[in-house]
This record gives sequence, structure tokens and C-alpha cells, in this order.
Amino acid sequence: MNNLLYAQSGGPTAVINTTALGVFETAINANKFANIYAGLNGIEGILKETFYKIESDCDLSLLKQTPGAAFGSCRHNLTDYKNDDNEYKKIVEIFKKYQVTHFLYNGGNDSMETVLKLSNYFKEINFDCLVLGLPKTIDNDLLLTDHTPGYGSASKYIATTFAQIAYDARSYIKGRINIVEIMGRDTGWLTCASSLASLTGYGPDLIYIPEVSFELDKFEIKVSEIYKKNGHCFVAVSEGIKDKDGRFISSLSSNDSFGHAQLGGVATYLSNYLTEKKYKTRSIELNLPQRSFSTLISKVDSDEAYMCGKYGVLKILENETGQMVVIERDDNKNYVTSCKLAPIEKIGGQVRYVDYSYLNEEKNNVSKKFINYALPLIQGEIDIKTKDGLPIFFKLNK
Amino acid sequence: MNNLLYAQSGGPTAVINTTALGVFETAINANKFANIYAGLNGIEGILKETFYKIESDCDLSLLKQTPGAAFGSCRHNLTDYKNDDNEYKKIVEIFKKYQVTHFLYNGGNDSMETVLKLSNYFKEINFDCLVLGLPKTIDNDLLLTDHTPGYGSASKYIATTFAQIAYDARSYIKGRINIVEIMGRDTGWLTCASSLASLTGYGPDLIYIPEVSFELDKFEIKVSEIYKKNGHCFVAVSEGIKDKDGRFISSLSSNDSFGHAQLGGVATYLSNYLTEKKYKTRSIELNLPQRSFSTLISKVDSDEAYMCGKYGVLKILENETGQMVVIERDDNKNYVTSCKLAPIEKIGGQVRYVDYSYLNEEKNNVSKKFINYALPLIQGEIDIKTKDGLPIFFKLNK
Repeated sequence: MNNLLYAQSGGPTAVINTTALGVFETAINANKFANIYAGLNGIEGILKETFYKIESDCDLSLLKQTPGAAFGSCRHNLTDYKNDDNEYKKIVEIFKKYQVTHFLYNGGNDSMETVLKLSNYFKEINFDCLVLGLPKTIDNDLLLTDHTPGYGSASKYIATTFAQIAYDARSYIKGRINIVEIMGRDTGWLTCASSLASLTGYGPDLIYIPEVSFELDKFEIKVSEIYKKNGHCFVAVSEGIKDKDGRFISSLSSNDSFGHAQLGGVATYLSNYLTEKKYKTRSIELNLPQRSFSTLISKVDSDEAYMCGKYGVLKILENETGQMVVIERDDNKNYVTSCKLAPIEKIGGQVRYVDYSYLNEEKNNVSKKFINYALPLIQGEIDIKTKDGLPIFFKLNK
Repeated sequence: MNNLLYAQSGGPTAVINTTALGVFETAINANKFANIYAGLNGIEGILKETFYKIESDCDLSLLKQTPGAAFGSCRHNLTDYKNDDNEYKKIVEIFKKYQVTHFLYNGGNDSMETVLKLSNYFKEINFDCLVLGLPKTIDNDLLLTDHTPGYGSASKYIATTFAQIAYDARSYIKGRINIVEIMGRDTGWLTCASSLASLTGYGPDLIYIPEVSFELDKFEIKVSEIYKKNGHCFVAVSEGIKDKDGRFISSLSSNDSFGHAQLGGVATYLSNYLTEKKYKTRSIELNLPQRSFSTLISKVDSDEAYMCGKYGVLKILENETGQMVVIERDDNKNYVTSCKLAPIEKIGGQVRYVDYSYLNEEKNNVSKKFINYALPLIQGEIDIKTKDGLPIFFKLNK
């Protein structure tokens, strides 16, 4: 008897549930599984046996427009089983109980490490369960894939929002230095996506990402130049920018009113720094809506997220294991992509950084190459079902 | 010769430019004006003679989806002309030069004070120019109107975003206390609108607005109760909440790392306060997108914004002056509204607060009456023209 288990892990994206839909619809249609389960809250919930049975009469279509991880997520990392195999034993015990023969795990680089560890362990103990990874992260920092599902929709939201902020802020004759903080602790892919706003007429004047060491004095000179010239200045900055010694700029901010180091807030830090020097500033942190704004999903991203789920089911049915589904760009001009498999040991726990060829010479904005890379990913919208003027979301009957 | 002048003032809304479209299309069709001008940057730009001529062959249709104030805004208040009439004299001089006979000023309560002062001054010196006010503010704090254009779209954005944040944050088993900061220095209309998120399944557990004095200890007890019960807590808070002595809670936050009082940030303040007490928290400030997210405009709001612009032109052509266009709700069940005129001296410079009947007994959430009031305002969406996966915006050929 074949039983499929699917679970979600790490930070949600606007299309993670579309990958789930691709998995479930393909698995139902394949007619090869006696049971299809969603493991709630990733590996953390699997360890607690919180299994949710997908029935063919479930209305799953709303998954396409549902934010968050509809089946729950976790940030639980398995230890190396050579040091401690307790959790591994427990997983095998639970998998045996539910007769799980096929396991699809949907996540980012930490989750792919889980896929790697589990598939290695299963091989080592000769446990008969196939494991594949399905990619997901707004950060776009997985190796061996052209891009990751979730990145396109986050980019579309960020570019649209940045443009709207720029149009709004330009309403006044005398403007400010606007500093927009974008997610990305290690990589600048999302912050670079703000550059797409420029196609509407106004976008970021300056872009700072973790891959380029940040110099406060140079930053001040640049914003000051632009502000003097234009009466406005628009800056996009990754939450994770660091100085030349590798210290997070956000950590330079000293104590808050309760005597504690302030959380997050690199835009607030930079804004306060400039206010101190008598500049008129505004800081905006785009925050959770970057990954959860499901009313502005990119159709390309949605279609690819579905394709990854579908491909994962088809390949695991061909007995593939220990790999992750990746997206290949077969043709950039007409934008054609397809799925392949890539070895998980080359992906799990690793990070793909923004290549300097995607940046301009001064490394404070993007190059034309980046626009060519990112623009196809934000194309199109999906129809959103609404009720009472609000989107309708999938909710588990727990 | 009749010449019409239209200008925008105060903080933009997502539909202020739709009111402009209503003005221009109606004025063009009326065929009663030799010239139709937009005064750029409100009264501040008018004083500098920055006039933009609207031609019948302009493509104005994109105004409907353009964020910001497409013709520029200002925060310039005229002094009382009894004390200093210099600016008034200058305005009359410029109006004479451009032969402005009809003036429509689109703004909130400060702008309506400008309308009041100008119309009084024009009467006093017998200057032949009619003046009407067109309402606009996301704050919904203008008197004598059922609601203001801009409020519906801001409410739709806030409710949708709040729901998405709640779905996202619920992805994990162990959640946080999420504090979402919403615009509103004096009134809580926008913050109350977050309650509409609940119709999607998840919304704010607690709502705090400037009309109700804020007690930090009570707040902590409430969030703690809810967090213990649900493992999550969602709070919507107006930027302008105050303690019983009328001090802004955001001003209680002491100095930042540069030794200055921190700007804004009541959500950050409350979040830091709770973190200090060992709660797991997250603060989110919705910021400018609340008023500029033109890709999620409410159709009802858009239609009414247009209607206000149109009605203003029709009424000023009937020689009405010294009044503001208001919206009346003729029927709530089928939601039918119409425009009327109301005397500007009862509106300008005044504030409409949230009535306690719109709140629950504890005054930490809304009542059913508020839902009935606000829900019709967020209905429907407008079609958004896009290019390259991004919305297209109207841009002045300056």
C-alpha cells in the first residue's frame, strides 16, 4: 500500500499552498495512493502525529489564494542522527504506523537539510520510504534552481508597493529620504526586486543588500546628493545589511527605552541616523505582507508553484528520492520553464547569494541583467474569489 | 468667461485622483468652462502660479488607479485674513490673472478650513469666485458626511492585510502577540476597520483607538489572557492612542540610540514593553500603503469618489459656494448613497470622532453596528490596467 505524506516548513510564501494543491490534485488523479496525508506543522507536527487526511471531496481550490502555511509550518531542525537518532526513530515508527511510503517536504534551505538527513537515514537503516524536497522561499536563496516559488509573488508585491510609496511620497514639493526595509537576512534578492518599481516611473534610487558591505558615511553622501538634486530620495535596504566587519547594521542600534537591544529595524536605525543629521526622513518596514499578500499573487509564480508540486508527485512515483524539484529557465525571451530534479546534498543548508553581475558598478542598485532575470517572474495575476469584499481563504477543519 | 480650478491638499488617498477624474470629465462634458486647470500642490502651488491645463484630449482614465496626489498636494494652512491678508491678496491676483471663477478644493478638515476662509474672504471683498470643498481623507473624520472618499479603500486594504497577517502568523504552533499599528492620530475609524478581517476567519482580538484612553496594565492583562488561551494574539492599535492624561503612548518611548525621542512607533513601543515582560511579540506598522495601495481599491469607494467630483462641478455651476460635498446613506440594506451639500463652517477644522456605540462594552473592539456601517464601503474591486506585471500610473507632463 502506498501512502503519501506532504508537509510544509519554514516561512510561508504567498504560493506555498498552491504547491500543496499541485501535490494533492496530482496525487488524487494518479490513483496510486491509498491515503494522502498532510502532516500539520512540518516535522514538528509529524513527530506529534498530527496527520490530516486529504479526501477527494475536499474543496481545495481556495488553497491558491490562501496566505500562510495552510497546513501549518515549523522551524524545527533535526540534529545529526549520528549524534542523536531519537527523533529519527520516532519518525520511522510514526511512518510505519501510517504506512507512509512517499514523503514530500515543502520548504527552504533548512527544510532541505531535513530532507537530506531523512533520506540518508532511511537509506542507512533500509527503511522503505522515498523523500523529495519541494522548493519554497521568498528569499530565492536555494542553489541549483533558477528561482524559487514564492519569490515572484513577493517581488510583485514589493515592486508594486514600492512604486505606490514613491508616487505617494512625491505628492509634496519638499519630500523626504524614504528608507524601505525589505526581508532578507542573508541575501538581497527581494530587495533587488524593488528595482522593478522603476518601470512604473518611480522606483528606488539606491539599493543596499547583505552581499555588499555597508558603509554609513558613503550612504549618507549618496542620499544627500540625491535628495539635494531631486527633493526626494528612495532607498531600498535589506534587513540583513552588514558593515565591513560583518556586524548587522540593525545591531548597531543601541538600547530601547526598556534597556534592551532593539529588535529588527535597520530602516528605523538609518532613518534616526539621518534625522540626527537634520535630514527629513521616513522609514517603512514592509514586514509580513511581503510573503502573505495573497491578493497580488504573480500568475507565473502561482503556475510554477503548482508545477513543482505536480512534478514532485510524478517523480516520487517513479521512485526518485533524496532530491529536490528545481525550476529551469529553458527560454528567457518567451519565458519558458520546466522542472528537473537536483541532488539534495548540494542544496540543503546552503545559500545562493546575489551575483555581483546583477548589480551596477557602484553596487548600490541593480544591473539590466537583474531586470531581465526578475521581470518575467512577476507577470500576470490570478482571479481572487471574494465574499463581502474580502478574499476567501482555505481553513482546516481541525 | 468661466474658468475652473481644481486642486488637491492634505494626505493622499487611493481614490483622490478618481475625484479629480470626476471633476474633469464632468467639467469637459458640461461645456461651460473656457479653461479647466489643475492647481499643482494645492494652495501652496497656486500661490506659485503652478497651473496645469487639462485638455479634452488628455488620457485621464489612469487617474482611477494612480496612488498619491497626481496633481501634487500640500499642508499649507492660510492664516486668518483678519490678521494677515497677504496670501489672500496674492490668490485673488492670481485668480484674476487666470480668470478663475470656480474653485474646487479636494481635501480633509484642514483643507476645508482653507475653503471656509477663502469663501469668506471672497464674499467680504466681493470677489466673484465660487468655492466648494470636495471631501477626501482616509481618516473618515469629516463631520456631516456619512463617510469620506478614501476611507473605504483604506479599510479594504487594512482588513485584507490584517487577515493575511493573521493567517500567516498562525502557521506556527506557538505564536506571538502581534501588534499592528494603523494610521489615525486623532480618530480610530481606520483601526476599527481592521475588525472586518474577522469575516475571513481571523481578525483582531483587541482594538485600541484614540477615543478611548489607553491603560498599559489593562492592555497587558488582556493580551496575556488571550495569548494563554489561543497561543496567538492579534492587536490593532491607532498610532494616536493616549493615556488618561492625554499623552500619546508613542511619546512615552524614551530616547533612541542617537539620544532623540523616537519617531512614531506605538506598536514598537508596546511590543518592546511586552518583550521586556518576556512575551514573544511582533510589531507591524502598516504605514503609507494604507492610503496608497491603489491595486486594491474598493469599487464602492471609487464610484463615490467620482460621484463627489461630478456633483461638485454640477453644484458649482448652479452657483453654490462656501459648502462641501457630503455623502448621504439613503439605504443601508441595499446600500444606496447620494451627494448633498453641507455648510463648510460646520466642517472646516473640526473632527468627527468614533461614537462609542460603534464599540463593544469593554471598548477594546467594535460592535455589530460598526460592521454594518463599514462593510458596505469595502465592496467590489476595480479593473487595474497593467504593463510588465505592474500597474500603470498617470504621470503629469511637467
